[in-house]
Amino acid sequence: MTLDAGIAAKLKRNADGLICAVVVDHTTNDVLMVAWMDDEALDRTLTTRRGTYYSRSRQRLWVKGETSGNVQHVREVRLDCDADTVLVRVDQEGPACHTGTRTCFDSDLLSGG
Amino acid sequence: MTLDAGIAAKLKRNADGLICAVVVDHTTNDVLMVAWMDDEALDRTLTTRRGTYYSRSRQRLWVKGETSGNVQHVREVRLDCDADTVLVRVDQEGPACHTGTRTCFDSDLLSGG
Repeated sequence: MTLDAGIAAKLKRNADGLICAVVVDHTTNDVLMVAWMDDEALDRTLTTRRGTYYSRSRQRLWVKGETSGNVQHVREVRLDCDADTVLVRVDQEGPACHTGTRTCFDSDLLSGG
Repeated sequence: MTLDAGIAAKLKRNADGLICAVVVDHTTNDVLMVAWMDDEALDRTLTTRRGTYYSRSRQRLWVKGETSGNVQHVREVRLDCDADTVLVRVDQEGPACHTGTRTCFDSDLLSGG
């Protein structure tokens, strides 16, 4: 698969060829997680409607939920004004965080709350 | 100012010494913008309660709204499970985006909506 040329031309990738992806629960509007995408991950997210990312540690694509079953059904994808970050709105099955919490931001409050 | 040692010890900074900051409107839960922080930016955000970031292009700290007046009053800061991203909940004065839109994700819908 190849990312749409018009979209590919707009992206401002980092030195590793990646853009940032902020994933939001479509129903609650809560930020679930932040991950990274290369062109192929973005293409697959747009075409398969499953949240798909690039793992910097494993250096390969991964489909969210491919092992846990906690897949993401993609409802909307938006690009930011700098073209280096996408906002991905999803229906999340199960917890989004690999630690088992609903979001990746549930455990460590630094201030406020 | 120096970032709290307990927090500093937890952070997993990228090669440039930065963590990602996802900024959310405390009232609407909408994602307003994504920016970057070094230790000093995080310390200032926590202590001054004004959204403060590190500009990769200008290579210096910036306080959101320092020129536009569209400052952010920080309500809550959370660290994610990987300790490389913070979620900053703010009361945003005026539009968050430098283009004048309410958020940085209002203009470019790639899919859905």
